Amino acid sequence: MGDYSRDDMKRINYYIEENRSRFIDELFQFIRQPSVSTRNEGIQSCAELLAGFMTKVGIKVQIFKKSHHPIVYGEIIKEGQPTVLIYGHYDCQPPEPLDQWTSPPFEPMIRNGKIYGCGSSDNKGQLFTYLKAVETLIQVEGSVPLSLKFLFEGEEEIGSPSLKPFAINHRQLLKADLALYSDSHIHESGKPLLILGFKGMLYVELIVRIGSRDLHSMQATSIPNPAWQLVWALSTLKDRSNHILIPGFYDAVAEPTPLERKMVAQIPYDEQSLLNHFGIKDFLPGRDNSNYYMNLIFEPTCNIAGIVSGYVDPGAKTVLPALASAKIDFRLVPNQEPMDILDKLNHYLEQQGFKDIKIVPHMFIEPSRTPIEHPAVEIIKCSIRQVYGEDPLVLPNTGASGPNYIFTGLLGQPCFLIPYATCDQNNHAPNENMNLESFFKGIYTGITLIQNLAKSSSFRD
Amino acid sequence: MGDYSRDDMKRINYYIEENRSRFIDELFQFIRQPSVSTRNEGIQSCAELLAGFMTKVGIKVQIFKKSHHPIVYGEIIKEGQPTVLIYGHYDCQPPEPLDQWTSPPFEPMIRNGKIYGCGSSDNKGQLFTYLKAVETLIQVEGSVPLSLKFLFEGEEEIGSPSLKPFAINHRQLLKADLALYSDSHIHESGKPLLILGFKGMLYVELIVRIGSRDLHSMQATSIPNPAWQLVWALSTLKDRSNHILIPGFYDAVAEPTPLERKMVAQIPYDEQSLLNHFGIKDFLPGRDNSNYYMNLIFEPTCNIAGIVSGYVDPGAKTVLPALASAKIDFRLVPNQEPMDILDKLNHYLEQQGFKDIKIVPHMFIEPSRTPIEHPAVEIIKCSIRQVYGEDPLVLPNTGASGPNYIFTGLLGQPCFLIPYATCDQNNHAPNENMNLESFFKGIYTGITLIQNLAKSSSFRD
Repeated sequence: MGDYSRDDMKRINYYIEENRSRFIDELFQFIRQPSVSTRNEGIQSCAELLAGFMTKVGIKVQIFKKSHHPIVYGEIIKEGQPTVLIYGHYDCQPPEPLDQWTSPPFEPMIRNGKIYGCGSSDNKGQLFTYLKAVETLIQVEGSVPLSLKFLFEGEEEIGSPSLKPFAINHRQLLKADLALYSDSHIHESGKPLLILGFKGMLYVELIVRIGSRDLHSMQATSIPNPAWQLVWALSTLKDRSNHILIPGFYDAVAEPTPLERKMVAQIPYDEQSLLNHFGIKDFLPGRDNSNYYMNLIFEPTCNIAGIVSGYVDPGAKTVLPALASAKIDFRLVPNQEPMDILDKLNHYLEQQGFKDIKIVPHMFIEPSRTPIEHPAVEIIKCSIRQVYGEDPLVLPNTGASGPNYIFTGLLGQPCFLIPYATCDQNNHAPNENMNLESFFKGIYTGITLIQNLAKSSSFRD
Repeated sequence: MGDYSRDDMKRINYYIEENRSRFIDELFQFIRQPSVSTRNEGIQSCAELLAGFMTKVGIKVQIFKKSHHPIVYGEIIKEGQPTVLIYGHYDCQPPEPLDQWTSPPFEPMIRNGKIYGCGSSDNKGQLFTYLKAVETLIQVEGSVPLSLKFLFEGEEEIGSPSLKPFAINHRQLLKADLALYSDSHIHESGKPLLILGFKGMLYVELIVRIGSRDLHSMQATSIPNPAWQLVWALSTLKDRSNHILIPGFYDAVAEPTPLERKMVAQIPYDEQSLLNHFGIKDFLPGRDNSNYYMNLIFEPTCNIAGIVSGYVDPGAKTVLPALASAKIDFRLVPNQEPMDILDKLNHYLEQQGFKDIKIVPHMFIEPSRTPIEHPAVEIIKCSIRQVYGEDPLVLPNTGASGPNYIFTGLLGQPCFLIPYATCDQNNHAPNENMNLESFFKGIYTGITLIQNLAKSSSFRD
């Protein structure tokens, strides 16, 4: 590693400098094409545009249209070489509220070294670094030193509903030694990050209906109130020290390894500034760790994301509601399984006598965590160090949930997320932006990674 | 009682028959004038129209405009005679949804023996029976046999905010031996009713705000969730057997007298048809009585009228809310006091550690119950029997809350509510109606009541 020739490096630098403005122009074209998945706006055109960019780079492309929004698949096969799968998504969030954008969301513009535009960092800019890295290697070296597969979907912002069925039906096509992607942001401290997993999720709605219509609240002497049923049921799920009371909920939780704990302990943070940032006085009581990151990464949650019943407009109305519902998201850690947690929840509520509560599941996402001891971790850390001049922070997983389990679980590939966006990228929000220098650092990191992975086979099964 | 001459009765019957269509015409005029208090629509005109009707009857009228909507006061003073105060309201609810009315809400129309129109029964038609009773007595007998005071407000449908201050400032003007009014409906069984009181109410909103904005729900590992705080707080207010847990909540509850219990036990009801009516399988567990009416009348309540936090639209969103709120109505029985219950609630939540919960009171209504042993009860029962041919059911109070405490508490008057509307009157709803024959029975009851009360002084202090 790190021993490719100075000449090679010079020619790579030269190629990137020479083509700098064209790279930006192409990324602008990519951003200019709206691709709002939730309302199917520009999705087809964006898939074709992306396929065109890939073909021009020298990637063999196939567009799979069977899924709701097309999956753009590409490959460069080097027989006998290790295979790296690169995942990304070309869809973006709706840009609303439009009046809060300084420049229009689909008219990319550079201000203060940042490319502003909807989808600029999430995920068009970060995805594009891989294409430009591959282009550079092909143009400078004549080819890439390993097999590459590209899996770009158009439904990430709506929960990737087609990705899992696609993966199930194309196991062979997607076979690889490891998966790489860049769809997050570097740490608040400015340090680069290497993310090894995501939390899972079980998202359920609890619904209680009693009677056929809202009644005058004087009937509360005799008629059961679904809001009370719901409150009592919820209060049995978690105690005031934030311990989740569903029997067996914690049974499958994998104890973090000493190395995982060590990595997380290294994440810099200032408790007081975090409290200020969130506008609160104290963190939750009852956590296992006082360390914010230890909890964020290793603790599963049971969160009320929404609750509603009866009269919720201003003022007073005396109603006995007929309907009450709550939305609950459980963030799960390895090796909890969303289906198993749902069974346990069902069983517990029934056992507690809440037979009238209907449980409607909305989302199942399995947790994923590529082992921190995996040999590719060191290769990737080293590659990042070569570009950034410092080691990345390593997160066993983030606090959020994502589709990594499709790679780690379903396809059996270690999966690594290396973010290039800065932490002020405003993703899912007005004035989303991609830092220009981070974009080019991403291209360099991609090149270095491909070179270093090609030189080592230690990460192959 | 009941011994006025057959000649008198004949002349009264004759007068009412002769003037039947004019009475209906005048009531139509009254209904035709919109008087939607919540949006101040037609209120002034309606107050003046009502004052005109009263003046024509022979009542000395004053319009008090100092309050938000005018109070129309009238009197006929007979020195040395007992004084009866008649209360009513000329305002009505908004008629919406308009498309559910068979005929337009402010164009009264008779169909199947019922006058349809917004305000027809609540309260214009029922109020009007007193005016026509007084007119009949004056026209037939030359005068009324006792002093009458009339207190008609235009804010009942918005919670009577000016009535209490008006009563405080006009104690002498409103001094009377008893108060009468008609603003409800007869019993489902078709039996006439005599209502002696109302429940009180404390209506509060519990508000929990944590942090300044909604967060990504991954923060649930460290950031407190106001919806959980609220759920835990609510679950400490009432247990699953519906016992209210606020210390001292039941302390002031007056034990029903044997006569009150006896009266309530006589109310006919069919448990299964009530269950069907409400669309439920079982009544609440944990009540003191198995009798629906015993609970409705004698039990105080703690009802969740509304609760909301976080994401409540369809589908899934993973948010950690910054705000949660619940609206709670406590229906109170004699001698509970809303201010005292508020203090106890405050103290209890604080003691339970819910210091971040803000309690915003919306409504204070004191419970009222005129003693069932009051001597006027027998006079009124007898008057109703003369008109209906059967004894009324006597309710110590209804399950609802009303302004009776202004009479019973503030002004120290026994207060009696005699409904004339039928139970299918649709008040506060499209196709509100007043049964024509009930309207005329109301006029006869008013006449009989005035005559009988004049003959007895046993009800005077």
